[in-house]
Amino acid sequence: MDWLTDKVACSDKVFYLQAQKKQATLTKPPGSLGVLEEIAIRLAALQKSQRPVLDRVWVSVFAADHGVAAESVSAFPQSVTAAMVQNFANGGAAVNVLSHYVSASFEVIDVGLLNTVDDDKVIIDRAGKGTENFVQKPSMTQTQLQSALLTGKNAVIRALEQGTQLFIGGEMGIANTTSASAMAVALTGLTAKQLAGAGTGLNENEIKHKIKIIEKAINLHKKFLVSPLKVLQYLGGFEIAALLGAYIFAAQKSLPVLVDGFIASVAALLAIKINPEVEPWFFYAHCSHEKGHKLVLKQLQARPLLDLELRLGEGSGAVAAVPLLQMACKIHNEMATFSQAEITIIKG
Amino acid sequence: MDWLTDKVACSDKVFYLQAQKKQATLTKPPGSLGVLEEIAIRLAALQKSQRPVLDRVWVSVFAADHGVAAESVSAFPQSVTAAMVQNFANGGAAVNVLSHYVSASFEVIDVGLLNTVDDDKVIIDRAGKGTENFVQKPSMTQTQLQSALLTGKNAVIRALEQGTQLFIGGEMGIANTTSASAMAVALTGLTAKQLAGAGTGLNENEIKHKIKIIEKAINLHKKFLVSPLKVLQYLGGFEIAALLGAYIFAAQKSLPVLVDGFIASVAALLAIKINPEVEPWFFYAHCSHEKGHKLVLKQLQARPLLDLELRLGEGSGAVAAVPLLQMACKIHNEMATFSQAEITIIKG
Repeated sequence: MDWLTDKVACSDKVFYLQAQKKQATLTKPPGSLGVLEEIAIRLAALQKSQRPVLDRVWVSVFAADHGVAAESVSAFPQSVTAAMVQNFANGGAAVNVLSHYVSASFEVIDVGLLNTVDDDKVIIDRAGKGTENFVQKPSMTQTQLQSALLTGKNAVIRALEQGTQLFIGGEMGIANTTSASAMAVALTGLTAKQLAGAGTGLNENEIKHKIKIIEKAINLHKKFLVSPLKVLQYLGGFEIAALLGAYIFAAQKSLPVLVDGFIASVAALLAIKINPEVEPWFFYAHCSHEKGHKLVLKQLQARPLLDLELRLGEGSGAVAAVPLLQMACKIHNEMATFSQAEITIIKG
Repeated sequence: MDWLTDKVACSDKVFYLQAQKKQATLTKPPGSLGVLEEIAIRLAALQKSQRPVLDRVWVSVFAADHGVAAESVSAFPQSVTAAMVQNFANGGAAVNVLSHYVSASFEVIDVGLLNTVDDDKVIIDRAGKGTENFVQKPSMTQTQLQSALLTGKNAVIRALEQGTQLFIGGEMGIANTTSASAMAVALTGLTAKQLAGAGTGLNENEIKHKIKIIEKAINLHKKFLVSPLKVLQYLGGFEIAALLGAYIFAAQKSLPVLVDGFIASVAALLAIKINPEVEPWFFYAHCSHEKGHKLVLKQLQARPLLDLELRLGEGSGAVAAVPLLQMACKIHNEMATFSQAEITIIKG
């Protein structure tokens, strides 16, 4: 897994300053497009270009089952993971509709369903037959972890072959907010009570049960949770490992990443802890309604673009934010400058 | 001006409940798309349709000059109003770039520049040659007010002729945050100090001066500020009156409105005070960086979609939020239902 810490290109200072300067010449009061200006400037520096462009967007949804689903931590039965994979393949899920709207390429990958889905449209790149129940044993073996990380890398390789300019990773896996919350506890030192939320729709008592499950798992594995990768191996999921692999490899290949919701943000936190150089390549799409997300975003010092009480996962919130990034680029590239418009901005 | 209080159609309860029911059948946990679900449901009820659609978007930017610009309340000289109108006609402004991105129809209207712009692409529908300086006399006569309101109505008539499904009004007018802040003081009872902000980029001392100008104007006219229309006549601008006329007429013609930033929100507040039935037809695009906007949105009990420190006006923030509304519709119309996807959601 040495590749995870391979070098990542820096954001280019010269292009950054040039883009900043250009924004000041556009026909608007300086700074008046707020976050959209910052995005364009960051992208110009990342793409080393005077004209940042995010026309080709790629969405990979990683799906896997979780052994911890046996602990009744989700409002949905475990069979929904595979059913949703079939739904992604059919184009019927929210992320499909949104990807179609922004003309993004879309793929769904089986990283480790309990039972495979028989459909040519599902990419098979499996690390196992669902994870173990992490209140009893580690979620996965080290070999499985390596395999799931490579699944993410492979997705980015496919994306790059198509000239992708923005990578989005989505996830599907019944019980995966429990896994992500447990990892967030181990990574941040915050408590299960602070981080565990309603997921797909738990009530208060069910959330209390979820908290207990997380505490039990942390307690069981605590002496092994010595590094981000161990946290992932002991408490994680195959699809979260795939997200991590994809995020890091995307940054290593100078491909900007738009991070989705709670689970994706935990993967981003893992990525930054493992290889801090990836950080400039990450954009944060939204603050979700899942309780722990705001806290994880704070750890990431992230400024999410949207705050619309989304809590679906599967990459949907990230795809919903794509138009904002694209509009930021268009503004940077297409607006007239004061001199083109022959506008004098000095008071008479 | 009797037409302002003409009847407005209600949101349809049957379609509302039907849309709510439909959202619960789509392949996602109930409520997991948060605000996007609410938008689709509201639009279904407004459009009396099982398939809400906002494909045809219309942007009218109303421009006018303000006599109060003589009081040095803007970071830009007054000549910028006309120069920006030329820029809108040339397609070089932020709102042009954004309108192009969302394939919206775009027009710019001279509601009362100091000097007209000689360009066929500018619609001439003038109420006067700029407003008066409202620290000395009322901004406009009643006849001018009537005329500017009709300018807004005329824009909506053009929009409807093209089958528009969403109306956006923008504004341009150097010194118009001063006018809008003064109106907000008169309409809400909040103070100039609470409401006046940096506009195009004033420093702290300049904002203090702006506050004094607003206080002076309120003091001068206070006994005449007895109704929303009088507030508009004494402290307003032609472009703000046009926005008001457009907003009310759009609602009367069952055309949803997406409200832009601070100045547009003051026009929306006027509209609701004059004709409360328009309220369900308004969607709020964003909370801007202009100080008073958050307070005006609170008065409106609005839940803006974006919060990206935008403060440009000209309709730009509203156009930036269009994809979110369109995506909300697509999700409602195009996602698979649980039964289509053959997903059982009862735990085994």
